[in-house]
Formats: sequence, structure tokens, C-alpha cells
Amino acid sequence: MNDESDSAEVVDLRSDNEAPAAPEIMAAIERANRGPAAAYGQDAISARTRDLFCDLFETDVAVFPVLTGTAANALCIAQIAPPFGSVFCHPHAHLNTDECGAPEFFSAGAKLMGVAGEHARIDPGALREAIEGTDDLDVHQCKSAGLSLSQSTELGTVYPVAQLAQLSALAHDAGLRVHMDGARLANAIASAGCSPAEMTWRAGIDMLSFGATKNGALAAEAILVFDRDLADGLERRRKRAGHLLSKMRYVAAQLEAYVADGLWLRLAQRANRAAGALAAGLARVPGVEIPHPVEANEIFARMPRALAEGLAKEGVAFLRWPGAPDLYRLVAAWCTSDAAVARVLACAERVARAHARM
Amino acid sequence: MNDESDSAEVVDLRSDNEAPAAPEIMAAIERANRGPAAAYGQDAISARTRDLFCDLFETDVAVFPVLTGTAANALCIAQIAPPFGSVFCHPHAHLNTDECGAPEFFSAGAKLMGVAGEHARIDPGALREAIEGTDDLDVHQCKSAGLSLSQSTELGTVYPVAQLAQLSALAHDAGLRVHMDGARLANAIASAGCSPAEMTWRAGIDMLSFGATKNGALAAEAILVFDRDLADGLERRRKRAGHLLSKMRYVAAQLEAYVADGLWLRLAQRANRAAGALAAGLARVPGVEIPHPVEANEIFARMPRALAEGLAKEGVAFLRWPGAPDLYRLVAAWCTSDAAVARVLACAERVARAHARM
Amino acid sequence: MNDESDSAEVVDLRSDNEAPAAPEIMAAIERANRGPAAAYGQDAISARTRDLFCDLFETDVAVFPVLTGTAANALCIAQIAPPFGSVFCHPHAHLNTDECGAPEFFSAGAKLMGVAGEHARIDPGALREAIEGTDDLDVHQCKSAGLSLSQSTELGTVYPVAQLAQLSALAHDAGLRVHMDGARLANAIASAGCSPAEMTWRAGIDMLSFGATKNGALAAEAILVFDRDLADGLERRRKRAGHLLSKMRYVAAQLEAYVADGLWLRLAQRANRAAGALAAGLARVPGVEIPHPVEANEIFARMPRALAEGLAKEGVAFLRWPGAPDLYRLVAAWCTSDAAVARVLACAERVARAHARM
Amino acid sequence: MNDESDSAEVVDLRSDNEAPAAPEIMAAIERANRGPAAAYGQDAISARTRDLFCDLFETDVAVFPVLTGTAANALCIAQIAPPFGSVFCHPHAHLNTDECGAPEFFSAGAKLMGVAGEHARIDPGALREAIEGTDDLDVHQCKSAGLSLSQSTELGTVYPVAQLAQLSALAHDAGLRVHMDGARLANAIASAGCSPAEMTWRAGIDMLSFGATKNGALAAEAILVFDRDLADGLERRRKRAGHLLSKMRYVAAQLEAYVADGLWLRLAQRANRAAGALAAGLARVPGVEIPHPVEANEIFARMPRALAEGLAKEGVAFLRWPGAPDLYRLVAAWCTSDAAVARVLACAERVARAHARM
Repeated sequence: MNDESDSAEVVDLRSDNEAPAAPEIMAAIERANRGPAAAYGQDAISARTRDLFCDLFETDVAVFPVLTGTAANALCIAQIAPPFGSVFCHPHAHLNTDECGAPEFFSAGAKLMGVAGEHARIDPGALREAIEGTDDLDVHQCKSAGLSLSQSTELGTVYPVAQLAQLSALAHDAGLRVHMDGARLANAIASAGCSPAEMTWRAGIDMLSFGATKNGALAAEAILVFDRDLADGLERRRKRAGHLLSKMRYVAAQLEAYVADGLWLRLAQRANRAAGALAAGLARVPGVEIPHPVEANEIFARMPRALAEGLAKEGVAFLRWPGAPDLYRLVAAWCTSDAAVARVLACAERVARAHARM
Repeated sequence: MNDESDSAEVVDLRSDNEAPAAPEIMAAIERANRGPAAAYGQDAISARTRDLFCDLFETDVAVFPVLTGTAANALCIAQIAPPFGSVFCHPHAHLNTDECGAPEFFSAGAKLMGVAGEHARIDPGALREAIEGTDDLDVHQCKSAGLSLSQSTELGTVYPVAQLAQLSALAHDAGLRVHMDGARLANAIASAGCSPAEMTWRAGIDMLSFGATKNGALAAEAILVFDRDLADGLERRRKRAGHLLSKMRYVAAQLEAYVADGLWLRLAQRANRAAGALAAGLARVPGVEIPHPVEANEIFARMPRALAEGLAKEGVAFLRWPGAPDLYRLVAAWCTSDAAVARVLACAERVARAHARM
Repeated sequence: MNDESDSAEVVDLRSDNEAPAAPEIMAAIERANRGPAAAYGQDAISARTRDLFCDLFETDVAVFPVLTGTAANALCIAQIAPPFGSVFCHPHAHLNTDECGAPEFFSAGAKLMGVAGEHARIDPGALREAIEGTDDLDVHQCKSAGLSLSQSTELGTVYPVAQLAQLSALAHDAGLRVHMDGARLANAIASAGCSPAEMTWRAGIDMLSFGATKNGALAAEAILVFDRDLADGLERRRKRAGHLLSKMRYVAAQLEAYVADGLWLRLAQRANRAAGALAAGLARVPGVEIPHPVEANEIFARMPRALAEGLAKEGVAFLRWPGAPDLYRLVAAWCTSDAAVARVLACAERVARAHARM
Repeated sequence: MNDESDSAEVVDLRSDNEAPAAPEIMAAIERANRGPAAAYGQDAISARTRDLFCDLFETDVAVFPVLTGTAANALCIAQIAPPFGSVFCHPHAHLNTDECGAPEFFSAGAKLMGVAGEHARIDPGALREAIEGTDDLDVHQCKSAGLSLSQSTELGTVYPVAQLAQLSALAHDAGLRVHMDGARLANAIASAGCSPAEMTWRAGIDMLSFGATKNGALAAEAILVFDRDLADGLERRRKRAGHLLSKMRYVAAQLEAYVADGLWLRLAQRANRAAGALAAGLARVPGVEIPHPVEANEIFARMPRALAEGLAKEGVAFLRWPGAPDLYRLVAAWCTSDAAVARVLACAERVARAHARM
């Protein structure tokens, strides 16, 4: 029994960020704690972690650990866009809708410009049109400076590598830099089965928010800079944002354990598999519709309110999605067990049946 | 043997932020990891921690955990000063000299105005003069908005409670709000032997950066707001600065363990005691001068370069203080052992003697 | 002949901001130049101008002259929205599309949130929905802080006073403050025939960007603050934005002459009348469509490219509107003569006829 | 008699920014008003003015007219220093003491770092020390980015060209860019008798705030960029700060008239000559001391309070200088007549004599 978690009885599908940390990562923190170490990232673990990322991504990448995805994203936008610049992103992008203006704050006022696309993936045609609609000689509009892509997306879909490459090429041709919000990159890579390099810099990504927190870390993200020009000044930006930890080794230790021997992909595969099973099962429940392809670890489900309430009553925790009355989000995490999946599906069928009888 | 720390042979007096975390705090993190929990500080540990701080400070205080002292300080300054405001602080204040402009960033451009005083303590006469020199009707100068006091100070001294009260009263009379940078507040309270309430809100402090990282946590600070008006909007400021962690419970767990049963004061007492012993011993070494009273866990020592180099060669790590050629800082931490103190002093005497013979 | 203007032969309908200054306003500047005067708005003309605005708006209003509409708008947004706040506006609002991020800059990163509506007028239903979609307890989104309305709108339409009042009431009920971008307020008031008070504070406007530049001044706008709370700190914001002129009297002199004896409405009536005549005439030209009601001094016209090019060739200068291939904007100014109107219409008919023959 | 100025009886020595505009400049505005012209600086006068500045400074210079010295200075600082950067300036520099944090606002939080020197001129030795004290690898401090020099200085002195060159060389060697605040550059050049090029880019100045307002314009300053890299993005910065006027021609017209045929130097010579005569005369008045060399158009005088009050009573208007009880500033302007100088001196002698008799 766990007196620290909210309830042992609940299947928590509200968010993968409600999951605990993986034991391998806890162990790494313990190991990092055996004596003094240089502060501010000058320690041995931080150095090893930098090397690890270079190996993992098969290129010389600059690595800046931070604590939150919001910080990673906002720092990247500030590096890409001058205060008088703008960055294209999907209107549903987390950095546009859920970070309380962090990109605007860090960049001193750059603008995010929405570019639409189905299932929260930016449509290349729409991006082409948006780029053509900008005029870099017109001083009355912000200067187009970047493109930000979420992988996986806010709606749990995954950009195919070819679409990433196409979008990046459009951006680069117009002089823009490309950022990827990879808060759930592990799930996207586990889903696509490609290499980290293929899904990022080989597809034109210049800067990456590499997430670990949602997939088994306590609090650890890393900004990876493939285009080294974009690293200029980033250390000081991180410092003055309060994201250079004195005891940075504890963040580095999490990242090291996370990527060292493929743990990150194993954890993501578990989450994806659970999500897939949940989605498949829910799709068979009468009245349930799955409007977006389930390609990572998030499931969006349209369901009657009675079913949603019935599930909640039985201890299945998940969120109503804002802006749509009957749309719900269920998120599988690295620790979502087969038993939990089975319990949710059994519960859904039972509630739906009961409801049908009424 | 510890393959993660920089060297088992070194006595690390470079900074208390190079020390590992206390075992009690590691254990609390382990306990916090036994299952899912609500994100963004809505969990049970965070709630308990808020209550604990109210008990500890004997008042209803608003609590905002963050990860770094820089974030805590800069968020406080931004709450106190409008973008067109100014905040008085000692020229040596950490937030003025070592945070890469974080207060200016978070506040959107407020100005820090230096007010002098011996041993890094602001002189009340100098503050009175500075306040009188401002004219709130003059639109050409920033509006005086706050006073920031560091406790203990950048030079390891501790403000007597009466001086804090005097400075706060001057500030309040002029309509200013008072912030305390308590990155090493535990050491100051352990030194003064007063209660947390006496050293803070009862002495006129409106907002406090309460530090734990330097004194045994991995990464945990808390903004405590005594004047509740100053909490307005702070949640969103923290969020958009990337300092609202999704798994906030791990920060709360550190803070809970830190303050729950007096651990914080026991740890600070150890550090202070080690610093006192080091200072007393060093003062007896020929050629060494201790220019600032050692009242917390930092020792500033003037010493011949040969002595400094000799100590370094024998594995005693510490920093040359910028701006003075022969001034060095040695910092004791919660884990600085009696043996380490003895070793440093023995080494200092040996080197000084050898040097005298030459 | 005028060797300073671009061409005496052109009928300039590109923008009312290409028009010269009215002679009455030039004369006022001359009068203001007869000797020394106190700097920074402490002069006699500035004092008189403040009184004049109080009379004109039938209320005690705070007056802050500035030089550009961009400065006026951005300062207002910064007063209304905290850095972590958001302001609703029409997606076509000038401050969203044509000020290069000035509101974001001045407010230190507040977000503008588009709310749609036909003819660039915000739809009350859409505003209600947008307000209901916000959740002031959710720290992940910016705090809804304001509503900005353009009068007349970017598409040359005018909000009826009742619609202004309805929108303001929705905003106030939700705790928002209401700003009006009145760069062309004179044209709107001349069009509606109501009093300045009726169209502003009596309809719930809290803060107004009152424009004069487009309607006969050289460079003069005024921020009028009806809700005096919103004036707190505005003087310093204006100063640090570089908009407190030392010789402010020359701006005040323009404003005084502009509003003193109804000049502003006479000038706007001329512009509106010319626009009305142009619109009526153009609507009769084959192939021309007027998609938005012409209610102030701007005409939007859909026309075949050949007609647009033909007009341009004959010296009628106007702009293609971005985002639509065959939409053009023609703006009448205070100095657009009946002869100029006649010439444009004759030219349009001639070109259309010639084109029809081909 | 002038009913618009504060008093015909007063000799106004409070500031050169209380002086009216020179008739030549008023005439230029009239000429600029004879018809429509392209907006936003695309007009013919603006083009001519750019050429004129290139001729005047004997180099290809980028020209950005703005309305105030505060805007010019703050835009320059923002171009030179990143948000995480710092700029050295004299502690008395106008941009540090009298612009309400404008440089911090425009730069999104860069720090100004005071470097001392007698008579408000930065001492080269102090600058060398300040530069050596910075460490560009230390992420805890802002990155040194620039040096700002005021010419003439806040205390009415003028840097010799050789000292400017020496300071610029120190800055350039350290990778810093050099800005000159030339709000009173005309007075400095008139005083030194050198060419504009010699006092600016040939002495290492990269960016200049070129003032005209204090020396006979209504409101006109220009940012001149000698190092063209520093012009990148400046147009958009100016726009989003609200300093791109639609009717920019009226600013350009002032600047054109100001520099076209040496008017600026003639006006400055008059002001300097009046200041010299005032200083010489005052120095002979018993009890008066002139603590700073009078090298431009400002006089600083120590005098007994009774003398100061006596002068004020007789209609001589000037300011007490903040921070010193008996220090006063008197500023001569382009229109300060010989008669006015004579009147002030006669008055001073009379008051001093009367006071001596008591």
C-alpha cells in the first residue's frame, strides 16, 4: 500500500506525468549521491551524459539539461526567434496552449503563428501558404524565424519522418530554424521504429526538447542543439531563467540512466503497447469513437458522458479534453500494467452494457 | 569508494552546493515514488508541505516550491517590482552579481540599486539616504519598489534580527516591500538561535527565498509569501518560467523531509560548527587573516598565495574570491566532518611552516 | 507644385497616413514655438489639452499624449494585461497583425487571443464562448485580462454603440478591462453621429487610443484613461518606452487644435464623405464588388486585376490587401477632394469600359 | 509677448530642451507639408536625409530617425547587448540615471555596469580594470557586450577625441561594441572643432544617438549605425517600440534642415558661447565655484543657497542638481541671447553683493 500516492485503487490515465519514476532512474540518483561533485554541470556524470547523447544521436550535439519541458521549449524558441520574430506551430501545440506564455516570456515577445493540419500535424500545404504570406521586408510584421513541431503531437499522433523532412525543408528554404518539442519523443520513436537521428537532425530538426519526465524520470529534460550556432548564448539564457542547477549531476544522472542502455525506448514501448491495447478495446465498446489515430501513448476517445462518469466512478482517472463536450484523453505511462488495461476495458464494457440496458 | 564524485581524496570546500544530499532527503524521495500522484503540485505531499511551513513559521504562509535559488529570487523580485521599478540590495548581493541578470529578466527590466554596508550587510544609514534620494514623482527614475536582504550574506555574515527589523521598517515607511534571499537561511537561523518567524516576517520580511539545496537537498527551494498580496499571479509567473514541475511531489518531498523534524537546523548547525572550527584554526596560522566575521558556514580568508597553492596541492579545494588577489572563500557543508576540518588545519599549519622555513 | 510630395499627379488613396497635416494644426505648432516652455508635458498647452479632453469626453479623463498609434495601443495593452495575461481582439486587429509584436513587447509577453466576427467586428457570441473557454484557475493558460476593440475596424466598418456596450459588458462581467483602438475614432464618431462619451466610456471602454495622425495631425495620439486605476504607472511606462517627449508641447498643440473647436469631426466628415462617394461610384463599375460596408473612410473593393492595374497606371494609388488576390483597399483622407473622387470614378469607368471592349 | 511660453520674463536655463525650435526647422516642416507623401520613411525627404548623413559623416551610414534620445539610446543598447549581456557606462550616464530603465526594457533585461571617471568621463584605467574583471566563460555573470559613452557628458564636459579612441580600442579588443549618446553631440563637436567623422567612427564609435531636439529641433533624433552589422533587425525593433512614425517625413525634414548647411553647428556654437560667458562671469561672483570644466553648453556651479534663491526670485530659472546640496545646473541653449547672459550675470553680482552686506 502506498500512503504517498493519491489512491492505490485508481488506474491513473490522467497523464503520464502522474506516473512515478522508473527504478533504474531512482538507482542512478542514489549512485550520484555518494560524495561531493562539481556544481553547475561541471561534474563527471554531466560529461558522460553529453557523450552519451552524441552516441545516441550519431552526431556532435550540444546538450543542456533542464527541469521542465516548458523551460526546454521556451529556451529553444528564444534561441531561434529574436524578440521581433515569429515561430510557426500548430494551433494545438503545447507551447501555444499550455505553457502560460513561456515562449513569449523567454523570447521577450516573439509571436507564435498557428498553422493548421489534421490530427495536430502541421499540413505542408498550409505551411507553404503561411510562409508565402509573410514578407520579410515588411517591418510591420514580426520576422519569420522558426518552425516548431511536436513529436508525438498534442493529439497522440506521430509525424512520419518523411513529413518532418518535408516541413523542415520548407522552413529551411525560407531561412527558418526548426525546433522539435519532443516531450514524448521516446513514444514517437518507439512507434516509428526509426533511429533518433532519423527522426531529428537527419529530418532537418535543428533543436530538440528531449523529454524524459513523462517517460520515467523524476524531472529531467534536455535541450539538444544539432545546429551549433543555435547554442550561442544558451548557457546564459538557461542560467538567468533559473534552470542551471547547482547540483546538476542529479539531472544528468537521470538522463544517463534513461538513455544509457535503451531504457527510454523500453519504457516508451510499454506505454505505447498499453495505449494500443486500450484504444483497440475501447473502440469495440458501443458508443465509443477514437477520432485520432493512436500512434503513441495517448488515446482520445469520444464517449457518452454516462460512460465517462461510470468509468470515473469505478476508479479510472482521465481528463475531459477542453473545447469539446464529449472528448476525453487517456494517457498510458511506462508503468501502465496489462492488468490495469484489462480492468479499464472490463469496466468500460460493463458500464456500456449497463447503460444500454437502461 | 565513490566513482561518481570528483575525488574521494579531496576536502571540498568550494561550495556547499557541491555536497551530496542528506540521506533523510534521499529516503523521502524514495517514499514519494511508490505510485502515481497528481501533477503540478496538487499531490498530497505538496499539501502537507504547505501546512508544515505554516507551522514552522507560525503564520499562514503561501508556499511555492521551485528548483533553484535564482528562480526563487528572480520570481520574488518580479512580484515586488513592476518593470519600471527598482529594488535596493547590497552591491555584493548574489542576485546582483551571480544570477546573470535573472531579476532583470523575470521583472522585464526592473533595476537593482546598490546600497553599501560593511561585511555585505546593508547599512541602515545608507538605506535611509538612498530612499531619500529617490523621488516618486520623478518619472525619469524607476519607482522604488523593494528591498532585498541576503541572510546569511554573500560574505558569510548574519544580520542581527534588530537590524533586519530596522531596515524593513525604513523600507515599509517608504512603501517598499522586503524580500529576503535565504539561500543559507538555515545557517543564519542556526547561528542566531532565533525562531524562523523572528528572523523573517516578525522582522518585516514580506517574501522569502527559502533555500534547501545548499544544506542537504538535491534541488529544492521554496518561495514563502508572508504578505499574501504578493502572491497574486505568482503561480502563473512560476509556470511560464518553467518552474512548475509536473512531478512537483519530488520537490515537496525534499522540503518536507528538510523541515519536518528539525533536520534543516541540525544540518546547518553541523556546517556552522565546521566553519567555526576552520576559521578559528586558520586564524592561528601565520599569514592568515579572517576579514569578515564567520557567523554562518562561509569563511573568507586572506592568505599568501603560497599557502593557498599549498593547500590546493594537498587536496583542499576552495575558491579564490573575485576582485581581490589574496582573498579566498572556504565553505563548510552539512557533511563537512571533524576529520576533514582537522585535516585542513593540519595541512595549513604544515604548509605555513614549510613556507616560513624557506 | 510641390517638390516635397511624391507626385502632384497622383490621387493618393494608399492610406490616410500619407496625407499632409491640416493647416489649423500647423498653425498651432507655430504658435507653440514662440518661446521657452517647461519640458516633459509640464507646459501650459499640455495642461489646457488635458482640460479640453475632459470637456470633450464629459468626464475626468487621464491624458497621455504619445507619438504613434502603435505606442498608444501597446502601452494600453501593457497597462491592462500582466506579462502572464491575455487580451482578446479580432484576428484582423491592427495590434495583432501590423505592429510587429509591440503589444507583446510592451507587456513583456502577454498573448493576444483572436475572437472572430464578420467585417472585422468581434461577434458577441464568439466572445462569450472565448471567455467561457478560459479558466482562471488553470495556471497553464495566460490569465484573461482584457478585450481590445478597434473603432473604426481594420475593414472600415463601425461598431454600433449598442454592440460596443454588449461586448464591454461581457468583458467586465468576466473581470476584463476594455481597450479601444481609436486610430480612426474620429471617422467612427462622425459616421455614427453620437458623442465621444457615448462611443467610449458610456459604452464600457476603460482605455482609449485616441488617434489624430491619420486625420490631419503630423504625429499626435493620446491615451485616454477613463478607469483611473489603469493610469497607475503609465507615466513611467511611457517614459521608458521613449514616448515622453521633452518638447511635449508640440504634441499637445496638435491635439489642442485638433479637438478645440470640432476640427477633428469636420476633417473626419470630409474623409467619410469622400469614401462614401467613392464606394457608391465604384459599386456601379462593372466587375467591382464592395464586400464590407463602407462606414468610415476606408473602402475595400474586389476588382479584376486589369481594372486595378488600369487605375494605378492613371495615377490612382491604393493597396492590394494581403491574403486575398483581388481585394484592394482605398482610403480617403481629410484632404481627399471632390475633384479627386470624380477623377478616380471617371478613371474606373473608363478602364472598365475599355476592358469590357477587349 | 508670448502667451504660450511659461513667462516672457524668465531667463530659462533649466534645460536646452525647454527652448523653442529654430525658425529654419519650422520652415522645413512647413515645406514638408505641401502634399501627400509615402508613409513610414519611404518618402523623398527621408531618402535625402539619409544621403545627407552619409555626406556629413563621410561614410556609408545607416540612418534611423526616432523621436527621443531615450528611444535612440535604448534601441542602440538593445542592438548591442543580448538580454543576457551587459554594457559599461559612466554611473552618471543619462541612460543609467534618467531614462527610467529604458535600456533594460528595450534589451529585455541587459545590465548597465558603472565605470567611474572624473567629470563624468570614463577613465581608461577603470575601464581596463572593469573589462579584466569580467570572465566570458562565467555563465553566472552577464556577457560583456558594449560600452556607451556620452558626448558631451552629463556634467557638460567633452571627451577629447584621443580619449574616445583609447576607450573604444579597449572595448573593441575585448569584443565589445561602442555606442555614443550624442544627445548634445553638436555642442561637443562645436567645442572640439573636429569633424563629425573624427569624433565618431574614426574614434571607434559603432553606433550613435545623434541628437537634434536639444539644439533647435522640435523632436528629432537619429540613430546612426556605422558598423552595419548592428543595423540588423533595428527597423523592426524601432517599429515595435512605436518609433516608426507613419508621417516620418516631418522628422526627416527637421533632420535635413538641421544638418543641411551647418545649421546644427551654428546653433551649438551659440549655446556654447553663451555657456562660456555665463561660466566665466559666474566664476567671478564671490561664493561661486565651477567644479567641472565648461566645455559645451552646460554649467555646473556650486553656490550658496541664498544666491541661488536670489537668482530664482529675479527670474533666472535653473535646476538644483540631485545628490549635492549646493550644486546647480544652468544650461544655455541655441537661443540664449547675449542680453540674457548679461542679465543673469548682473543679477548674480547684485544678489551676491546684497548678501555680502547682510
